[in-house]
Amino acid sequence: MAAALNAATLGVRGTNPVVGAALLSPDGRILHVGHHRGAGTPHAEADVLARAHQAGTDLTDVTMVITLEPCNHTGRTGPCSRAILNAGIQRVIFAVHDGTDAASGGGTFLADHGVSVRHGLMSEQATDLNDRWFMAQARNRPFVTLKIAQSLDGKVAAPDGTSQWITGACARQAGHSIRARVDAILVGGATARTDNPTLTARDGDGTPFDHQPLRAVMSRTPVAHDARVRRGVGTPGGSEPATDGRFVWLDTHDPGHALARLGALGVTHVLVEGGPTVSAAFLAADLVDELWLYQAPLILGAGTPSLASAPTQTLADAARWRSDPVAGPPVRTLGEDVAWHLRPAPVSASQ
Amino acid sequence: MAAALNAATLGVRGTNPVVGAALLSPDGRILHVGHHRGAGTPHAEADVLARAHQAGTDLTDVTMVITLEPCNHTGRTGPCSRAILNAGIQRVIFAVHDGTDAASGGGTFLADHGVSVRHGLMSEQATDLNDRWFMAQARNRPFVTLKIAQSLDGKVAAPDGTSQWITGACARQAGHSIRARVDAILVGGATARTDNPTLTARDGDGTPFDHQPLRAVMSRTPVAHDARVRRGVGTPGGSEPATDGRFVWLDTHDPGHALARLGALGVTHVLVEGGPTVSAAFLAADLVDELWLYQAPLILGAGTPSLASAPTQTLADAARWRSDPVAGPPVRTLGEDVAWHLRPAPVSASQ
Repeated sequence: MAAALNAATLGVRGTNPVVGAALLSPDGRILHVGHHRGAGTPHAEADVLARAHQAGTDLTDVTMVITLEPCNHTGRTGPCSRAILNAGIQRVIFAVHDGTDAASGGGTFLADHGVSVRHGLMSEQATDLNDRWFMAQARNRPFVTLKIAQSLDGKVAAPDGTSQWITGACARQAGHSIRARVDAILVGGATARTDNPTLTARDGDGTPFDHQPLRAVMSRTPVAHDARVRRGVGTPGGSEPATDGRFVWLDTHDPGHALARLGALGVTHVLVEGGPTVSAAFLAADLVDELWLYQAPLILGAGTPSLASAPTQTLADAARWRSDPVAGPPVRTLGEDVAWHLRPAPVSASQ
Repeated sequence: MAAALNAATLGVRGTNPVVGAALLSPDGRILHVGHHRGAGTPHAEADVLARAHQAGTDLTDVTMVITLEPCNHTGRTGPCSRAILNAGIQRVIFAVHDGTDAASGGGTFLADHGVSVRHGLMSEQATDLNDRWFMAQARNRPFVTLKIAQSLDGKVAAPDGTSQWITGACARQAGHSIRARVDAILVGGATARTDNPTLTARDGDGTPFDHQPLRAVMSRTPVAHDARVRRGVGTPGGSEPATDGRFVWLDTHDPGHALARLGALGVTHVLVEGGPTVSAAFLAADLVDELWLYQAPLILGAGTPSLASAPTQTLADAARWRSDPVAGPPVRTLGEDVAWHLRPAPVSASQ
């Protein structure tokens, strides 16, 4: 199970939980390890079975160990419960139940078909790995990733408003690869007006990726007709403003309302890209599940702080975060910049 | 020379330049590599010679490669020029000249005594490694290390003033190990009043190290008679305030004046520990040679920024820094915190 948990951290956060799986020989040796790489790719169970098939491993008498109960439904991929049964696996151990209405029941399905099913092994660690994902599911809202790109002293713009670019090309490209795997990007009205971003996901050459997320602006003020964010990719930016139909105006200041609107549009993973007011609002509402902090080695000394003032009064009340082990080391250099991957520390019962 | 340069980065910044040395066999193999570990410890040349002696290496026909011209004076250690001569080394290659009045002339000394001396190999890299140290020497001022311990959003205190502790025990201990190797610690008057720090260097148990730096407060307002910073270690904090004579009040707001005063007291390495006004003043005057940024994964949202407002107006004018390879990786985790080791990017000729 430790190997499966470790494999799970090779995935990415977002639409789906991170999941790892391992196949054990009758004498307990690890034969194969697999993991889920994000929405639309094989689940961890399918991944490890594919590795076994490729290697020609005899699956008689092997045990499958999984960090999450196998799914029992057909989403973008088929149900893992059936795949396990079809592969002839006779023993399954999973760490935690899948509590989602759609996917749960895989354990029962397998047990009903004669497979030996146990669960609860290292369940604390497995729960911890996806705690915020489970919370978002339980609250029926999209998973929220916040991205902040700031100077060493926590500023996102100089006093004259210049902000392009604080971080270097590597950090910006990392930001685009997050954009490429979410369902929607959200910014505030001030950012849409000041930076006039396209909010498209592009590769290092500036070429748009095939998958483009929804582009959402959260603002009480309507978004200008000629704003780039309305345009998307592949629509000419001539005198006649065009849109690809993937722009959403969210007429609210409330992050919860904004998420509800996006959830109703089928969004399960949102990337919030600021500005400071919107970022602070999501943080204050405890609606950030994952934080990517990109920090550049430059000092502005003055300018716009990355977060608008929040109501913390004393140090003990400060929101604490912890390193996120998923998708690589929790802190790394990207060119001259530093990327720090964080998740909220668990909220105590009293809060 | 590449091996010597790499060895140099194993040293620490401060009182002395970082220096590496290697011994090469007649056919060019690297026999031994050494480096300087900071004030009071053997120079790189002595270190590599000690390794050779310990291993019983025959020094006939070996070449010593050094990143800096061997020193020619007796400081806390003897002159390296004489040590090289006494060891019987017949060929020396160094990267850059030692431009300090006291230590220079080692190359000439060796050449005068029949040693083959060449210089200039990889001199650009060797100069770069100590650029700010050479600058401080040229300007006859102490080398300045700035330490900042801030929240994720660049704050050093909550709105109510609470600031102990933003960073965790590991980061604080790292700060103490820097204190233990400098000649003086400097803070501003507001920090001395608000935090009432002792400014002593202590180990993880709170036990003071043997070496205690001077404790300097830079302020136009006199420092209170009962301030802890006056006290030092080993002097009782009873009703009768005592001092160990290692407290200095610098009656100025000018960082240059403060450094001149400390230099006159024999200080060659100063650690500036804030607050925001003093840190910003040193940065604005380009008087910071090394920056340790400790950042905790907590969000204050409001409170005191780590740097008081500085006169940057536009992004292009922002002070740029670069990762410092000396003393370990440029960025690392320390417990839940991140430590980032930076040095100023080279100043272009126009500035």
